[in-house]
Order: sequence, then C-alpha cells, then structure tokens
Amino acid sequence: MIDRLIDAIIEKQNPTAVGLDTKYDYLPEDFRKALMAGVTKADVAERAAKAVFNFNREIIDAVCDIVPAVKVQVAYYEMAGLPGMRCFYDTLAYARHRGLVTIADIKRNDIGATAQAYAAAYLGSMSIEGKAVEAFPADFVTVNGYLGTDGIKPFADACRENDRGAFILVKTSNPSSGELQDLKVEDGRTIYEVMGDQVCQWGGELTGKYGYSDLGAVVGATYPEQGEALRKRLKSVFFLIPGYGAQGAGGKELVGCFDERGLGGVVNASRSILCAYKKQDTTDFALAAKREAERMKADIAQALEQAGKPMITECAK
Amino acid sequence: MIDRLIDAIIEKQNPTAVGLDTKYDYLPEDFRKALMAGVTKADVAERAAKAVFNFNREIIDAVCDIVPAVKVQVAYYEMAGLPGMRCFYDTLAYARHRGLVTIADIKRNDIGATAQAYAAAYLGSMSIEGKAVEAFPADFVTVNGYLGTDGIKPFADACRENDRGAFILVKTSNPSSGELQDLKVEDGRTIYEVMGDQVCQWGGELTGKYGYSDLGAVVGATYPEQGEALRKRLKSVFFLIPGYGAQGAGGKELVGCFDERGLGGVVNASRSILCAYKKQDTTDFALAAKREAERMKADIAQALEQAGKPMITECAK
Repeated sequence: MIDRLIDAIIEKQNPTAVGLDTKYDYLPEDFRKALMAGVTKADVAERAAKAVFNFNREIIDAVCDIVPAVKVQVAYYEMAGLPGMRCFYDTLAYARHRGLVTIADIKRNDIGATAQAYAAAYLGSMSIEGKAVEAFPADFVTVNGYLGTDGIKPFADACRENDRGAFILVKTSNPSSGELQDLKVEDGRTIYEVMGDQVCQWGGELTGKYGYSDLGAVVGATYPEQGEALRKRLKSVFFLIPGYGAQGAGGKELVGCFDERGLGGVVNASRSILCAYKKQDTTDFALAAKREAERMKADIAQALEQAGKPMITECAK
Repeated sequence: MIDRLIDAIIEKQNPTAVGLDTKYDYLPEDFRKALMAGVTKADVAERAAKAVFNFNREIIDAVCDIVPAVKVQVAYYEMAGLPGMRCFYDTLAYARHRGLVTIADIKRNDIGATAQAYAAAYLGSMSIEGKAVEAFPADFVTVNGYLGTDGIKPFADACRENDRGAFILVKTSNPSSGELQDLKVEDGRTIYEVMGDQVCQWGGELTGKYGYSDLGAVVGATYPEQGEALRKRLKSVFFLIPGYGAQGAGGKELVGCFDERGLGGVVNASRSILCAYKKQDTTDFALAAKREAERMKADIAQALEQAGKPMITECAK
C-alpha cells in the first residue's frame, strides 16, 4: 500500500494530504443555515452529520485532482455519535471513490487480541457466520505503540495480508509531545528514537519498491530538527507529517523529512484548508480549499527545490 | 466520579468489573443459531450486533447485583461497523440503567484540539446549533498518555466539569508491555513510573473523599511487583487492573495494588466471565457468568483478607 501512496504522490507531484478533521463549527454559516433550518434536538446530530458529509464531499471534489490522499480524523465524527460514525464511513468511501488514498487517523492501541479487532475494523474484515464484514475500511491507519510489539503485530499482519499500511506515533506535533517522547533512556536514545527504531524493525518485511515500508511513522512538522534526524535514522520508514498550516509549520520546516528523491513523507494540513474560505474572505469554501491546496503544493515543491531535493517525476516499476 | 465508583465497590464489597469485550465467537452456538437463522450478507452485521447486545443484556442482568461496574472494550464493537457502534451505545446505556458504573475502554489519545473532541464524545457533549449532543456517554474512559499534558488536559477538564473519570495507561497487562514501558530514563525511573508520576500530577486537583483522584491509572494484574510498587508510589491514583482470569492473574497477584483499607483498584475480567459457560459445561451463559463473578469476588476478598487488607465496610461521608 505504501507503493500506491508514493505512486500517487509522484503522479500528482504533491506529497500532501487534506485532513478532513471537520468540526461542525468549520462549516460556513450560510451553508449550515440552509441545511439546518427547523432542526430539533431529536434530529440535530443526524442533520449535522449530513451537513458535514456534504461539506466533505465538496472539499473532496475540489481537491481530488490536486492531492493524492485524505486523512480523516475520527474524533470529530465520534463526537456526533452514530450519525457521525456513518459520516466517517461515507467520507472514507467517497474519498476512495474519487481515487484518493485514505488515511483513518484513529491512533488505536491495545493488547494483542484487541489490537486484532481494531485491525479487522479498519484494515481488514471480520467473519460472521462465514460472511465477511468490513467495518470502516481505510488504506492506512494511525496507531499508538505504547503497548509494544504484541499491540502492533496485528496491524502489521493486516497490512501484509490485505495490502494496507499503518503510521505509528513517533514524534507528535503538539506542544507537549516532548514531555515523554524527548526523555532519554539509559542507552542515550530519546523515547521517540526508541519508538522509531522499533517501527523500522516491525516494518522490515513490508518494504516496497521505493525502499519504504507499509509501516510508517507520525513525525510532526513542528519539530524540524528531529524530523531531519529521524529521516536519516529511519531510512525505510515513510512519514505522515502533521502540523503544517494552522499548527505553525511551513514548507521550509519539513524538507528535512524528505530524502534526495523528494520522497519520504506525506504532509497533512486540515484547518488551513477546510477553513481557507475565512482567510480568503469568500463563502465558496470548496474553491478556497482548492486554492489553499494548490498554494501548499507549490510551497512544498519550492522548499524541496531549494533544499536540492526536487521530487522525481517517474514512478518506480 | 471516583467516589461513586468506590462507594459502589464498598456497598457490593467487590472491587471488580465485568469486561464486556464481547466477541461474536463468544456467544454459545445454540444462542447464535436461534438469532441468526437465514442471515444474509446484507444483514449479518446488524443481526450479529443485536445478538451481542442480547448476550450483554443477559450478562448485565446476571451480574448487576454482584459487581459495581462494567468495562466495555470498544474495539469489539467497532469491528462490526455502525451496528456494532449502536450495540456499544446500547450496552453502555443498559448497564447504566441497571445501576452499574460504566468504563468505556477506548484508549483514545491525540493532540489538544482533537483530545477535546474525544472527551466530548465520551465524557461530555458537543453543542450543535445550541443543542447538546451526547455521543457515547460513559462514566470513565481509558486514555493513552504518549502525547503528554495537552493530550490529557481535555479529559481532565471533562472529568471536573461533568463528574466523570479517566484511567491513563501506565503499566499494561500484555506480554510485551515492558519493551517501552520498562525502559529506564536518565533519572533512573522507568517509563511507566514517569507516566504514573504524571498521572498523579495531572489528577491532583480531582481528589475525592477517599483520597483518590478522578484520574486513575491502568496497571496490569500480570505484573504484581510493579503493581505493588506503584500502589506505594502513587497514593492518590486509583487503578483499573486488567489481566485477571484468562490473561493469567489471580487474587494473590493483585493484592499489592490495594491499600490498607482494601481499596485502590477495580479488577477487570472479561473472557473468564463471558465464556465461563464453556468451563462449567453448560449453555446457561448468564448463570455461569454469575457464578464466575461470585467466585472472582470471593477469590479477591480472600486474598485481601490474607494480605491483612480486608475491605472497609462503611462508605466515607
């Protein structure tokens, strides 16, 4: 699956993903008003979820020729209960229908038997009375590795068996990520380096034609030095890079995460794209998102160029 | 909320929770056959989820006079998609209706803004057009603290504002939990001790009448020495203790997690209760679960007694 993501990145010459972390509040007022007139307490979640799906669909239509992937943050859908989860499912399905690689940002984690259930839910299927049930199919998921190997193996197995991928949290983009992740263990490595090294090991067998594995790592764009060092350290690990845009990082901050071919990561931006209409002073949120996605693509291409790492233009065979 | 859990534990003289980690395969064959006759690929998830809910309801009815709490592992519900999530919601609601404290075992984690969405989903509500939507209400959740303070604060805020609680992963029960958690950092503490100390600090303001905080810790029964040391170290932190029963630990292994009043933890068992009917060679799974819940209660009471820590019999005022 990592090969399919990298092929799509090269074809679109754009190593970015649009983050559909769609809070209801992000929807423009007029758009909401039109869809929510006369709403009651009984149907408010249902109708809000439908409004969010309509919004997502327009965003997907606007950006699907520009970006290779979307990342869908499940928390914003869980928050709206069952209608929200239906919207999550529909959003993943619609993005796939429009040819995008889908990343379900779920950060799941548990002991072996339970991790197996999560892997079945997002990267596989469960068999009931001989019938396969796919719950919330996605191409990639995000996973938290605090529980160690037996919490990761079921995801790695599902990646192998069903041609999917997973990004494991290594160095996250938030301000307090260093509290635990930057601590040094006795052999001198930081905890995020320990985690990174484990990802490298866990994913060793799953390496594809570009030398990257189906098991990748989450590395925040907000920590450029650490990103650069991790790129050198974890040669076979592809990065999912959050933190661009609203969280503060630009193209320059993240070139260190890329290799000499201009590959090695997919950069996610959510709020800066979903809410681009506010900055552009328009109500056409889809057009504004498209413009911002194009601006982001150009920003990163320019930064890679200036760093002497222009992206290769031919896919590997 | 921790006070309400401890009150219930004292009233029932039983520091245990039944884990509703209900895999479809756990349902007795006859029970399944009766509910699934003529099932098709189109309705298999829907009907399986209903069968699981019926099973859970009978288990809850059988144990609700014996145990103070249930822990519902969301992975097994996510695996069945939207019908599964409905079953998750219904199971939590039915347990609450029967007077049980509910623990949603979700192990969620994310950066601040997103953690806020998770907290709203399980420990609060979100406001849409001035109407409050409660997604999957539970009394407690489990949380993974790899992201540091800004990933925890939204949960702590929700605990304070809505009288709820959270258990943060400290030392998990699985075989490979030590790979990361047992590593020592430069000041000589293990990572699980670092995490435990943080839980203590995060939860400081939320301490109730028993001296325990609404922010507790997950400490696996499968590591008795570490549990005992953590009990001494983290005096204000209540433990959710998985690993009893099918994972291998018995009453003796976990007395170290308790204080001199016989308090300090709630012990979870899942498979050993849900599948007790197999060992007892009966199809009456509810009666078998009740017997096993009673056996577990007696086992832990005896172990506490022998350790010189019999549980107090009066609730604090």
